[in-house]
Amino acid sequence: MPQHNVTPQRPLLAMTMGDSNGIGPEILAQALARPEPWQYCRPWILGDTTVMEAELRRVNAACTLLRADTPEEAGQAAEGQLPITDCGMPAPARKPGNLDVAVGACVLTWIRQATQWAMDGVVDGIVTGPINKEAIHLAGSPFQGHTDFIADMTGAPEYKMCLFTDSMRIVHITGHLSLRDALDEVKQDRIVQSIRIGYEALQRMGLAAPKIAVAGLNPHAGEAGRFGREEIEEIQPAVETCQAEGIPCSGPYPPDTLFGRMRAGDFDMVIAMYHDQGHIPLKLIAMDEGVNVTLGIPIVRTSVDHGTAFDIAGKGIAREDSLCQAVRFAAQLAGLPRYAGVGAQRNGE
Amino acid sequence: MPQHNVTPQRPLLAMTMGDSNGIGPEILAQALARPEPWQYCRPWILGDTTVMEAELRRVNAACTLLRADTPEEAGQAAEGQLPITDCGMPAPARKPGNLDVAVGACVLTWIRQATQWAMDGVVDGIVTGPINKEAIHLAGSPFQGHTDFIADMTGAPEYKMCLFTDSMRIVHITGHLSLRDALDEVKQDRIVQSIRIGYEALQRMGLAAPKIAVAGLNPHAGEAGRFGREEIEEIQPAVETCQAEGIPCSGPYPPDTLFGRMRAGDFDMVIAMYHDQGHIPLKLIAMDEGVNVTLGIPIVRTSVDHGTAFDIAGKGIAREDSLCQAVRFAAQLAGLPRYAGVGAQRNGE
Repeated sequence: MPQHNVTPQRPLLAMTMGDSNGIGPEILAQALARPEPWQYCRPWILGDTTVMEAELRRVNAACTLLRADTPEEAGQAAEGQLPITDCGMPAPARKPGNLDVAVGACVLTWIRQATQWAMDGVVDGIVTGPINKEAIHLAGSPFQGHTDFIADMTGAPEYKMCLFTDSMRIVHITGHLSLRDALDEVKQDRIVQSIRIGYEALQRMGLAAPKIAVAGLNPHAGEAGRFGREEIEEIQPAVETCQAEGIPCSGPYPPDTLFGRMRAGDFDMVIAMYHDQGHIPLKLIAMDEGVNVTLGIPIVRTSVDHGTAFDIAGKGIAREDSLCQAVRFAAQLAGLPRYAGVGAQRNGE
Repeated sequence: MPQHNVTPQRPLLAMTMGDSNGIGPEILAQALARPEPWQYCRPWILGDTTVMEAELRRVNAACTLLRADTPEEAGQAAEGQLPITDCGMPAPARKPGNLDVAVGACVLTWIRQATQWAMDGVVDGIVTGPINKEAIHLAGSPFQGHTDFIADMTGAPEYKMCLFTDSMRIVHITGHLSLRDALDEVKQDRIVQSIRIGYEALQRMGLAAPKIAVAGLNPHAGEAGRFGREEIEEIQPAVETCQAEGIPCSGPYPPDTLFGRMRAGDFDMVIAMYHDQGHIPLKLIAMDEGVNVTLGIPIVRTSVDHGTAFDIAGKGIAREDSLCQAVRFAAQLAGLPRYAGVGAQRNGE
């Protein structure tokens, strides 16, 4: 396959560098030194030019930077040119592993701009690099992290935290809640909404006949009400509602064997009833390759499934796998014509 | 290694056949046709002689049956002889896949006798084959399954459901409860008791310096109280209590990355806060090789981690892996001198 297999339909993806003192710039350069991301999309970096240039040089990337602050400028990128903007906020000199409020302010600007462009239809989706929560807090952000910031900007009433790998796609009906609070959210409405959102994503990704499994909540999915009644009172009715809408879903299934069944190909997606029900199996199988996908917001957004890794930043040893996958899933979700090797992937899996 | 590496210290293990219409007899014969179980222990079968004979013949096992209804008779087994008793309850003619109340009655008798022998010190431990819950119910048992039956016989106030594989050992602080009820049991006392029981088991298994990790309950172990306070109020104090007793434990750890860390060798055992927290990762990694270990009862008891598989019974296609592992762990837990290749295993892992 040629390295830069240009097709005009490739989606334009805004990629935020993340905290410039973390591993973000390193994995971004490493990813863009590989041919795959260019086959899936046209990248447009939001981050610091000096930092990015140094990292591209370090990995001998074939591309060169093109300063591009507007869509028109980005659109002029020729073969092998990588458009980049710092949105008027260049980062301080890179000090790997250093918590810096000034970096936090840059990061927030880059994310805000990328999100705005996605909402305006200027870009087809965004891929976000890892940020330091404390740095953005110190820089004045009231948000916990990326996801609630982006959700708030897009006005989404409720987003779904999803984890995707090649063999596992998991939609969580709730996110960062205590397990006790999460139990109170195991309700028909929320489950129905999650199934619908998950189904829409699978359709956008080009899966022809997706199979969605809905997990139970209790051990053995409650064994017909012997250990809990949520399966009977909330989950089963939600499944039936969605089935009546024509969504190919089933369940509730015993949680402890369900994820193995998905990996084996029985299902394309699992709707998980709480954070760790999905995170435990995914992290066990794909510690460094999982991708966070934010569904339920009106833009395409994926993210790496790891942090800034300050302890190894600047050493050039971080792996770019999660970021490469994040780019691939964003391109798929962007829903443009099925890219060779992406939309077609399903059948070859 | 010689096939029958006899040492007098090998523990005597009672092995119940389980439901004779399920896969129990098949996997028992297949396991005993392999050399390993004989290296770990001296087996004594409780089950039907005719059924067992047919299965041993099917797999060309090197051993021959020796009718042995008493410890003295079992003790007379020579090299290559497999002692067996039906406890005066021969099973009806085998009909694979058939639910039979008469079989349920036999099964109960065999388990009762094995447990009694273990309590009397006649055998060093028991390994139980898969039973059909409905068959024992129909035969008059008020118990859900093996484990509560055995726990009741031994007078144990509370047993712990544990899952062991070569790379993962998980002690659950609760068993078959709804998730909501299980949350109410995340209390210091119960956690302390579980850590102590887990530590004792690791010591009996000959692990010189075991490392026990205690899982958190909430996402990210609660992030310092932001998503739930059980880590602060119950789990951390329990860990400190056990540390003060000299038990090498630590935690609470974020549940979603903990099981990968155990597999990687960071820990020898995880104390899980609810059923699926441990069952999801274990079943994902070791679908057919996990072993149920009942801790907290005054006898050594292990069990296969699967059911009777009526759908494939009689076809000779069931795998004996879980049973072989169950025999190995029972031998280890029996705590007799460290068997070559068993107690020593830890260092070679």
